Amino acid sequence: MIQHTSTKDVRYPLGQGAGSDAIHRDPIYSYAVTQLHDDSGLTGTGLAFTLGEGNDLVCKAADFYAAQLKGKDIEEVMASFGHLFYQLSNEQQFRWLGPHKGVVHLALASVTNACYDLWAKKRGVPLWKLLIDLSPEALLNTLDLSYLEDELTREEALALLKENHAGRAIREQITAAGYPGYDTSIGWFNYSDDKVKENVKKAVAEGFTAMKLKVGSADPERDIRRANMVREAAGDYVKIMLDANQQWTLPQALEICSRLRHMNPYWIEEPTHPDDVLAHHQLATAIAPIKLALGEHVPNRVIFKNYLQTKCAGFIQVDAVRVGGVSEFITISLLCRKFGVPVVPHVGDMGQLHQHLVLFNHIALGNEALFLEHIPHLQQHFRHPVSIRGGVYQTPQEPGSSCDLII
Amino acid sequence: MIQHTSTKDVRYPLGQGAGSDAIHRDPIYSYAVTQLHDDSGLTGTGLAFTLGEGNDLVCKAADFYAAQLKGKDIEEVMASFGHLFYQLSNEQQFRWLGPHKGVVHLALASVTNACYDLWAKKRGVPLWKLLIDLSPEALLNTLDLSYLEDELTREEALALLKENHAGRAIREQITAAGYPGYDTSIGWFNYSDDKVKENVKKAVAEGFTAMKLKVGSADPERDIRRANMVREAAGDYVKIMLDANQQWTLPQALEICSRLRHMNPYWIEEPTHPDDVLAHHQLATAIAPIKLALGEHVPNRVIFKNYLQTKCAGFIQVDAVRVGGVSEFITISLLCRKFGVPVVPHVGDMGQLHQHLVLFNHIALGNEALFLEHIPHLQQHFRHPVSIRGGVYQTPQEPGSSCDLII
Repeated sequence: MIQHTSTKDVRYPLGQGAGSDAIHRDPIYSYAVTQLHDDSGLTGTGLAFTLGEGNDLVCKAADFYAAQLKGKDIEEVMASFGHLFYQLSNEQQFRWLGPHKGVVHLALASVTNACYDLWAKKRGVPLWKLLIDLSPEALLNTLDLSYLEDELTREEALALLKENHAGRAIREQITAAGYPGYDTSIGWFNYSDDKVKENVKKAVAEGFTAMKLKVGSADPERDIRRANMVREAAGDYVKIMLDANQQWTLPQALEICSRLRHMNPYWIEEPTHPDDVLAHHQLATAIAPIKLALGEHVPNRVIFKNYLQTKCAGFIQVDAVRVGGVSEFITISLLCRKFGVPVVPHVGDMGQLHQHLVLFNHIALGNEALFLEHIPHLQQHFRHPVSIRGGVYQTPQEPGSSCDLII
Repeated sequence: MIQHTSTKDVRYPLGQGAGSDAIHRDPIYSYAVTQLHDDSGLTGTGLAFTLGEGNDLVCKAADFYAAQLKGKDIEEVMASFGHLFYQLSNEQQFRWLGPHKGVVHLALASVTNACYDLWAKKRGVPLWKLLIDLSPEALLNTLDLSYLEDELTREEALALLKENHAGRAIREQITAAGYPGYDTSIGWFNYSDDKVKENVKKAVAEGFTAMKLKVGSADPERDIRRANMVREAAGDYVKIMLDANQQWTLPQALEICSRLRHMNPYWIEEPTHPDDVLAHHQLATAIAPIKLALGEHVPNRVIFKNYLQTKCAGFIQVDAVRVGGVSEFITISLLCRKFGVPVVPHVGDMGQLHQHLVLFNHIALGNEALFLEHIPHLQQHFRHPVSIRGGVYQTPQEPGSSCDLII
């Protein structure tokens, strides 16, 4: 039984240009941490990610949701978590502050993730193992499919899960091999040209075959020059992703993307405002076969549904510490499976939680095991930091979701 | 000069079913109030509206924005408010909590609205008068048109304002006649059938020719029965609007709206999730010529742009205490003017601020003077409550935006 709940506001300044992009020049990687203290002595830990200022607001909102879990048994909670998620996310007064977005939804992510962590700890297994072992029905009971009725009914979701049961045994072998990573840290926005080139060489030497450069400069020539520079340093066979962090207008994006074509980007990420479904549709159509990667700032399944319906997203970057936690992440992954679009999460959690979720996505849903973003910051703050060898995530074995911080 | 700033969390329980709809069974009408204390002795007051829980979070976020106004002269602030709005709404760490939505954007609304209020008070005129007397260039300098470049450049906006200069003198006569209202309070969700019928008769007797019924029940038969009942009580010539408060799934909406067709609703409001642009497009196409009214929960100009681009909204219900305040309200009104869609605001402010804005929209932008929502609650808490006679808003004459509360 959950005896009491608490939240913590933890912030980690990075410094020296790390984490910088076209809009976030001086981010402070921060977590709104929810802890569920069980009478078994176990503590479930859940995270939502922010960039510093306002992290306290997310904690306060998480307190409100978490209070409703007091006195409950985690197995009972998770047996119908989809219903609880619906109730919490539609709480009649709090809902006005979203709905299903912003501070309140980040808070719900933190609380939801704490529930999944406690659940896995109580069962004594890593979260990926718990999830892949759930029956299709038990899994669906953890999800809220409301507002998806036009694309994914419960029956359709069930059929999708059952169809993908075949081939699981083979896909499960990935837990021995490890899940591939890509390096996001070679080209932070404020890094000098020399530092970027050096980082590219280091990443290739470490075994990474995919890496990301931050673009979205006020000066498009800088973006184009640096993109070409990374291609030259990395060679033709490395996948290079370009991330504009929403800094282009649609007319700018149309122009710059066409000029970036010849350096052969694997994707272009967040070219413009994350709410602008139609602009992304127009851009994707214009720059095909170059693909867009979208979702870092998309707060809920409804907007992801629109992105998938317009077929503008070549990759979906849903983040379980941005949407309403593991539950909504899985719902969105099911939608992606239906639409045949790979899920490549943004990792506000530094990959700690997502290393579990991408294993589940591949093994249980049959999503492609493409690669998972790797951000090397904050490792020293996690009790069980991710382990990357030769550019590959080593499968976590500790019980839970690997989100315990040393605090 | 703004000497200091403060925020207040004020909440007014309504009781007895007032304010209730399909999702909000027990709302507490609340304002996150920002006050800018000028060394002239004047105080600018701005509001953001919530339904109770979490109003304190909006206040805390508003404190963060308001602090950046300290020491500034309001005329200087407003001379380039569009730039300040861009800066505040893209503040590099806070932005993560939106962007441009949820708690942080409600907070920005409160601060923005306080700026406009102080500006009008300092000039000693009601806000509507200040706004209609601005030159097109001065008005545009108060707006942030970023992410609208594909539909509304600064040049296009300027041309639109200049085109609509003709005919202003005639349209300005509305300030003598008053702006028509419609009655939102005849059919709150929890009101009994008898109370609704009684309210319809009272509203007609008071001179209202348009009124709204809350639908979106779990039982569609209740919705249909009550809609027919209101039509019968009101007669054929009263405009009746139906408001589902997002409670239908798309398949449900498609079915129920077709069954509501024969009672001839003037619009159907918020049929499903406010983020679901494509569902609204599909529904609007299916139920034409019945029109949808949308926007109460839409947080920013980018999403409104998508709604207008898909042509699914027959009426745009932007609320200046939900989007980023007066500035973004005007930006969205300009977009609506371009697309030829009437602006009929949702009035989280109980009409206090919007009575100014619809006069501006009609006189300066040439938007149709359709009608403005009237909610009779909270009148006793405002220093200068709206005055409705014969169903018509009397033009406010006091300096400012009529948002001062007795607190």
